[in-house]
Amino acid sequence: MAQFDLSPAELEEYRPTIHEPEDFDTFWTGTVAEARGHGGDVRVERVDAGLTEITVDDVTFPGFGGHPIRAWLVRPARVDGPLPAVVEFIGYGGGRGLPHEHLGYAAAGFAHLVVDTRGQGSGWGSGGDTPDPVGHGPASPGFLTRGILDPAEHYYRRVYTDGVRAVDAVRQIDGIDPARVAVAGTSQGGGIAIAVAGLLPDVAAAAPNVPFLSHFRRAVEITDADPYAEITRYLSVHREHADAVWRTLSYLDGVAFARRARAAGLFSVALMDQVCPPSTVYAAYNAWGGTDREIDVYPYNGHEGGQHYRFAPTLAFLRKHV
Amino acid sequence: MAQFDLSPAELEEYRPTIHEPEDFDTFWTGTVAEARGHGGDVRVERVDAGLTEITVDDVTFPGFGGHPIRAWLVRPARVDGPLPAVVEFIGYGGGRGLPHEHLGYAAAGFAHLVVDTRGQGSGWGSGGDTPDPVGHGPASPGFLTRGILDPAEHYYRRVYTDGVRAVDAVRQIDGIDPARVAVAGTSQGGGIAIAVAGLLPDVAAAAPNVPFLSHFRRAVEITDADPYAEITRYLSVHREHADAVWRTLSYLDGVAFARRARAAGLFSVALMDQVCPPSTVYAAYNAWGGTDREIDVYPYNGHEGGQHYRFAPTLAFLRKHV
Amino acid sequence: MAQFDLSPAELEEYRPTIHEPEDFDTFWTGTVAEARGHGGDVRVERVDAGLTEITVDDVTFPGFGGHPIRAWLVRPARVDGPLPAVVEFIGYGGGRGLPHEHLGYAAAGFAHLVVDTRGQGSGWGSGGDTPDPVGHGPASPGFLTRGILDPAEHYYRRVYTDGVRAVDAVRQIDGIDPARVAVAGTSQGGGIAIAVAGLLPDVAAAAPNVPFLSHFRRAVEITDADPYAEITRYLSVHREHADAVWRTLSYLDGVAFARRARAAGLFSVALMDQVCPPSTVYAAYNAWGGTDREIDVYPYNGHEGGQHYRFAPTLAFLRKHV
Amino acid sequence: MAQFDLSPAELEEYRPTIHEPEDFDTFWTGTVAEARGHGGDVRVERVDAGLTEITVDDVTFPGFGGHPIRAWLVRPARVDGPLPAVVEFIGYGGGRGLPHEHLGYAAAGFAHLVVDTRGQGSGWGSGGDTPDPVGHGPASPGFLTRGILDPAEHYYRRVYTDGVRAVDAVRQIDGIDPARVAVAGTSQGGGIAIAVAGLLPDVAAAAPNVPFLSHFRRAVEITDADPYAEITRYLSVHREHADAVWRTLSYLDGVAFARRARAAGLFSVALMDQVCPPSTVYAAYNAWGGTDREIDVYPYNGHEGGQHYRFAPTLAFLRKHV
Amino acid sequence: MAQFDLSPAELEEYRPTIHEPEDFDTFWTGTVAEARGHGGDVRVERVDAGLTEITVDDVTFPGFGGHPIRAWLVRPARVDGPLPAVVEFIGYGGGRGLPHEHLGYAAAGFAHLVVDTRGQGSGWGSGGDTPDPVGHGPASPGFLTRGILDPAEHYYRRVYTDGVRAVDAVRQIDGIDPARVAVAGTSQGGGIAIAVAGLLPDVAAAAPNVPFLSHFRRAVEITDADPYAEITRYLSVHREHADAVWRTLSYLDGVAFARRARAAGLFSVALMDQVCPPSTVYAAYNAWGGTDREIDVYPYNGHEGGQHYRFAPTLAFLRKHV
Amino acid sequence: MAQFDLSPAELEEYRPTIHEPEDFDTFWTGTVAEARGHGGDVRVERVDAGLTEITVDDVTFPGFGGHPIRAWLVRPARVDGPLPAVVEFIGYGGGRGLPHEHLGYAAAGFAHLVVDTRGQGSGWGSGGDTPDPVGHGPASPGFLTRGILDPAEHYYRRVYTDGVRAVDAVRQIDGIDPARVAVAGTSQGGGIAIAVAGLLPDVAAAAPNVPFLSHFRRAVEITDADPYAEITRYLSVHREHADAVWRTLSYLDGVAFARRARAAGLFSVALMDQVCPPSTVYAAYNAWGGTDREIDVYPYNGHEGGQHYRFAPTLAFLRKHV
Repeated sequence: MAQFDLSPAELEEYRPTIHEPEDFDTFWTGTVAEARGHGGDVRVERVDAGLTEITVDDVTFPGFGGHPIRAWLVRPARVDGPLPAVVEFIGYGGGRGLPHEHLGYAAAGFAHLVVDTRGQGSGWGSGGDTPDPVGHGPASPGFLTRGILDPAEHYYRRVYTDGVRAVDAVRQIDGIDPARVAVAGTSQGGGIAIAVAGLLPDVAAAAPNVPFLSHFRRAVEITDADPYAEITRYLSVHREHADAVWRTLSYLDGVAFARRARAAGLFSVALMDQVCPPSTVYAAYNAWGGTDREIDVYPYNGHEGGQHYRFAPTLAFLRKHV
Repeated sequence: MAQFDLSPAELEEYRPTIHEPEDFDTFWTGTVAEARGHGGDVRVERVDAGLTEITVDDVTFPGFGGHPIRAWLVRPARVDGPLPAVVEFIGYGGGRGLPHEHLGYAAAGFAHLVVDTRGQGSGWGSGGDTPDPVGHGPASPGFLTRGILDPAEHYYRRVYTDGVRAVDAVRQIDGIDPARVAVAGTSQGGGIAIAVAGLLPDVAAAAPNVPFLSHFRRAVEITDADPYAEITRYLSVHREHADAVWRTLSYLDGVAFARRARAAGLFSVALMDQVCPPSTVYAAYNAWGGTDREIDVYPYNGHEGGQHYRFAPTLAFLRKHV
Repeated sequence: MAQFDLSPAELEEYRPTIHEPEDFDTFWTGTVAEARGHGGDVRVERVDAGLTEITVDDVTFPGFGGHPIRAWLVRPARVDGPLPAVVEFIGYGGGRGLPHEHLGYAAAGFAHLVVDTRGQGSGWGSGGDTPDPVGHGPASPGFLTRGILDPAEHYYRRVYTDGVRAVDAVRQIDGIDPARVAVAGTSQGGGIAIAVAGLLPDVAAAAPNVPFLSHFRRAVEITDADPYAEITRYLSVHREHADAVWRTLSYLDGVAFARRARAAGLFSVALMDQVCPPSTVYAAYNAWGGTDREIDVYPYNGHEGGQHYRFAPTLAFLRKHV
Repeated sequence: MAQFDLSPAELEEYRPTIHEPEDFDTFWTGTVAEARGHGGDVRVERVDAGLTEITVDDVTFPGFGGHPIRAWLVRPARVDGPLPAVVEFIGYGGGRGLPHEHLGYAAAGFAHLVVDTRGQGSGWGSGGDTPDPVGHGPASPGFLTRGILDPAEHYYRRVYTDGVRAVDAVRQIDGIDPARVAVAGTSQGGGIAIAVAGLLPDVAAAAPNVPFLSHFRRAVEITDADPYAEITRYLSVHREHADAVWRTLSYLDGVAFARRARAAGLFSVALMDQVCPPSTVYAAYNAWGGTDREIDVYPYNGHEGGQHYRFAPTLAFLRKHV
Repeated sequence: MAQFDLSPAELEEYRPTIHEPEDFDTFWTGTVAEARGHGGDVRVERVDAGLTEITVDDVTFPGFGGHPIRAWLVRPARVDGPLPAVVEFIGYGGGRGLPHEHLGYAAAGFAHLVVDTRGQGSGWGSGGDTPDPVGHGPASPGFLTRGILDPAEHYYRRVYTDGVRAVDAVRQIDGIDPARVAVAGTSQGGGIAIAVAGLLPDVAAAAPNVPFLSHFRRAVEITDADPYAEITRYLSVHREHADAVWRTLSYLDGVAFARRARAAGLFSVALMDQVCPPSTVYAAYNAWGGTDREIDVYPYNGHEGGQHYRFAPTLAFLRKHV
Repeated sequence: MAQFDLSPAELEEYRPTIHEPEDFDTFWTGTVAEARGHGGDVRVERVDAGLTEITVDDVTFPGFGGHPIRAWLVRPARVDGPLPAVVEFIGYGGGRGLPHEHLGYAAAGFAHLVVDTRGQGSGWGSGGDTPDPVGHGPASPGFLTRGILDPAEHYYRRVYTDGVRAVDAVRQIDGIDPARVAVAGTSQGGGIAIAVAGLLPDVAAAAPNVPFLSHFRRAVEITDADPYAEITRYLSVHREHADAVWRTLSYLDGVAFARRARAAGLFSVALMDQVCPPSTVYAAYNAWGGTDREIDVYPYNGHEGGQHYRFAPTLAFLRKHV
């Protein structure tokens, strides 16, 4: 069925009970503190992207474990700061790519930090540059089941922490106004944005498009599409590990982070999206803790959602809230 | 077989005999003259794309039959002209989309005219805005067999002519240096660029990426992939029309236009490209009539070819030749 | 799920609210009047199909805009008229094909007019011979979204009108009894038959098999299969045009025509039909305005429905009502 | 590769060495004699197919083992005989279907015997009515490997013999001219027609379209498509039986039958046919023992080949040779 | 939807009404009696499988019609009997394969009879050795519709009877304790095990994994996957035979056999199993007539279910009940 | 094409030039020495697998970096050693699974060490238990491109070293004859076996089935199938890294290890194997440095090759050479 999930009316009221572990906040407070404890500098190196109107810096900042994380900082060439900043995270399997792929926000007068996802970047697009120096136990292909038996070892613990540290980093860079930072991203990038907004309630705004990484149980029950199906594949082999898997994922669920967010939130959702089913997106959206929240609905799209149509409403949202 | 076409060494020497009708030049000279005879103004209307560093104009110019063709003109906001211009044509099924999707050349100091393809623009991306007011006989789904029994009625006669008129148009716009115009495009856009370069030998440069629309016979024999397979599908039904089909396509073959080009040419080709098989690309490249020609080879890519990796070499090429 | 739509019991009672524009009848009365106003003759030319027991005429009649529409008229060779007639429309993508493909009704003593669908006929089978001289705006591949932003320009406005004019034409041909004309067709052909039965309440009977072109909204929500998915694809690109699209389609919906039909109606439906989902067929069937209506249900078939099994019940139905 | 087999020029000269067992003729002479020895009557029962111009008889004749085989006999209603006859065999998986599906030859003045294939008829179309009362050893799904370890037990030994007995039967029916009998068929039907033409050199003509069942070894090496791939699947499991399999198939290969044919032969072949690859068709065609042989080539078709386009040339061929 | 069937809670209570013919018991009592009436010896021949710790016998026993059925008997080499026995039936399309594929039960101290399925064994794995000497009417590819118009002629009547006779046979073999016999199998093998447990209520235990062959109507409505879809395919052609088909299948439905079973039963089910949908498995499980019944649920598996994870719980179950 | 690679005759003579880096031996001598330098004990713990005739030990030994690697040691329960041993490596994505899956060699009187592959074991089957504690740079999904820019960091450097250390380990275990050790494996397991045989020329025999990991360049050119296509996918993104990739893989190519092997070698190859194309297998086989080498060819199989049919010839080979 093309619109295979709940009806639009049901989605608007969809507030499932998502189990949250008691030590969720302790776990994450400790994680962020530990990462910050590693210290390390933010390195900002100008690169020649062949552009005259836009400048590009290659940024390296310390993420989880103090590991070096790469990002592009893209800014208008002929404007003096301090600029408001958009910290953007990337969709599953992709990397920060090449600088000229990210000109929109800068052309609109924002500083734009495009953050690599560790270990990813070889699945599509123009590549990433950030290793993940941490190994893992038996895992199904992909990233979602790496370290899945223990929240402390799970891949996305590191990735979410990198996201927090990306905001920490951009706030230290000359020419950026640290009080005017938004987080954004599509799919996995949207999931990371939600997590960061939950961990850093003082970000000014969050704009997750068709976000991934929310309400894992529902996703596994309702869709065969990757990447959620990586969990299914893992459980189809490791039949004895279901409890441990669900426990680990309860530390990583976007719904729990959404509850803790305080920023204005602009979501989008597509009703034919098998990759990030609409009910999983609404589960996070309906739990959003910020006073302002909006969601744009694409009834006839799959996971591509609004694509470039997101630019105008997101820009309007950022100009209002950041 | 992943690299399913000729070997790299064979491709470099591949110069097939492509039949060219005797009245090829007459046909095209008449076609272009007729289109220019329709006259009509170039309309340039500033639009608000939400950008501060880049300006966008919505351009309407008269194409084949004087029909109104739409394009975006994207330019640096803070630079005074006259600017060199890149006229870009779009891949099969897409439209000019939204202005902020086309910021690279402008951010590098060029004027960039992004030309809609008539009737297309609803297959992927953010849409197009240009109708094709001309009907057609029985045709297989897609555009390649519309009017295929007569070169005068074929869809691509109109599209190539629109391309010529796009160059005519950009040369009239204030702030553009009419002597410094290049044509470019990917896939179908590359095929149109080759045709325009053949019809307007005074364009300064042409940059076709993984171009479509060359050596149709070879394509039909070697690949099942669309859009070339639209021809196959048509012939599989209209078994009696093969001669008429091949005759019509001989007026539209990129190899014939490549022979007539005099501009510098920068091609790219992907060795695993089933959509635009490498031998069809080399057939045009090896026939290229310009004194400067280069081709970048992507041995491990399908039709996506170099994607964003094309930006840097294309920019270097444009800076040298335009 | 194999039987993926409503249950048989629900289908029998399925009477959804379908929005009908206020000027629906004005729109169509005007359209038909305008087409008839173009005048034009019906040309009937005997062709040699190699047959001794059956004669074949190549018929050309004026359709929408007075455009020439082609049809085969197939009749028993050794019977004197006047004969009752079946006017048949073709499934999506096909054409009238070759005369010997249509011998059943003539062998049973009927005159049989097999009507081409303009612009179609190159997708499968033995081809069609009728162009559509009208162009269109950006459209997704296929015919369903051509002119979709304005009912006056929509492709099916022309096709339905051609269907009305086909009945007009057959009634003028020597040897046909103008009072004894039925309309029939499968899939798209069934949808056209419904429209014609709604526009010409005096046809004697209508036999739509697994009809297409009814209850577009439901279709888009419930199936990913073409051709309904052409609408989805269009809307997935032109996200801003949904209202205009639904408005246009409200002038073309089989449910509205079914309400206006007065002829006896014989429908068929297949419960595993993803192409024309059963609920869309029942929506038209349950709205049928004729006093006699029957529906044959194929619980274990997809869109092929009853195929050749339709011949016997349709013949019985025609002998009774025509 | 769309045209994946040998080039057209190579195909015209393709005469592979096909091993033929020494006792091939003994085997088949004995087989036919044994079947004829079972005797049995030909039953001809008029059925009401709802037609006025064409009559239909339900024919039952004794096939291999004297087993009852069903066929439709379709004739013009208003013509007195004796008529020339076309005996047609059906494609793989289909049955004789419903009588009104077979009106072309009768409408052209021929008697047309449409022969069921034992055990088949439930895969597509309107069904068959003939059981195969003989079981088999382990076999891959389908019919090609039933009894594959012994030519005496192979399914197609029975089917080919049924084909011979169909000709025997039609020659006994009132109103048929026994000297004017042709055999025909598409795909499997074409393969049976070749076998019957080899076993009964006095049939007047044979018209195999895109025939199956020739040059099995080549087919297995070159295509993954069913039904030839049934052999591959069998051998992929029963790795030890390859010699026995090839030995059995050597008694059933269309090339050996083609050598023995003396009738005029009209073949057709499609160059993109993965089901019956062109080289396997040419292997039989180039071995054809009749003095007249022609082949129609469809360069842009898959296994559908000429479809309804075959009717006119086949009719011309039959009128000339039968 | 990944978990596409009823919810876990609904499944536990799922007890659909399954029509059972009045003469069900008569039919089966007669069938078994007739088979036993054929008499015939059980042949046990030692084979060299290259093993030192395990012995293997090639067993041939008389099945339905007295036809010879093959099986492997695998036993510990260094243990004196009498041993408890597991009679195992094979999944659809496979055969008994090679002896060393079946070492687990013997290594655990059981005698293990691995029974071929007549006519099968060429679809996957290492093959089977048992023919089915009985033919059939028109049937869709596969085994499920062979003889489907008459329960007396249906393929599974023979197969179930072979299963009963396999238990009869193993009870006669030296070194086996006839009172300690269990039946087991996966998919089709599980369906046969259920049937045998219903026909021989004195078997000690039954262990059907993800069993096939239960609640055919539900299966046809809910899944497109083979082999249940063989029924759909048959009915999609033979539209007139639905009543006869459902009547025949009512003699073969696992739910009816489950009601009659008295042995302890250990089932397994997978919630993402499209081949044997969970509701069809629960329909049999919830009807199970034995006092002990358990079911292991695999929520994240498709038809592979528990695979090798079934060994430990099955062994524990067998040690307890056999 | 079903047999898509070189012909059988060409394969037998296929000896491509494979570039070998000058420091290949230094690299590997150092790698093995470093791993051995980590020391560490071999832990052998008896587990209860429910079996009476076979014993199972859970073995943990130090691999690359001294990391703990898990394996099952499966032996006949009622035989006193010292036993000859088969060290087996697992196919791509799988783990050592459950002990009762590995009973064949033990039932034939061998000790059988079934070695986990680090980080794998969650793709199919019953799982693995060995983490890979080493991270990696951007990589395409799967294991083949982890660390692909530097041979010292490549995943298979660690895996091959684990294989060497598995042989080291089994030679230290009580009841094993250290002079009688063979290596074996299928697909990836066969590739590891070749590498170990090249690094430890004193192993008595090697039995690689349809081995993976040889002649990477050919594989990438000829097949789209995973896992070789992981390289293609990586290069399709990281277009600039081709030289580094081929350099790294030259340290890991099975052809280079095969040259250095001195053990008897029993290979198998399948001519329709798209996963490990026959030419890549023959490239290693024809380079094999041992005096005895044999290859079994499966002409009609894909990557499943001989499956269980390999057991008998492998057992015969092991009894002769070990």
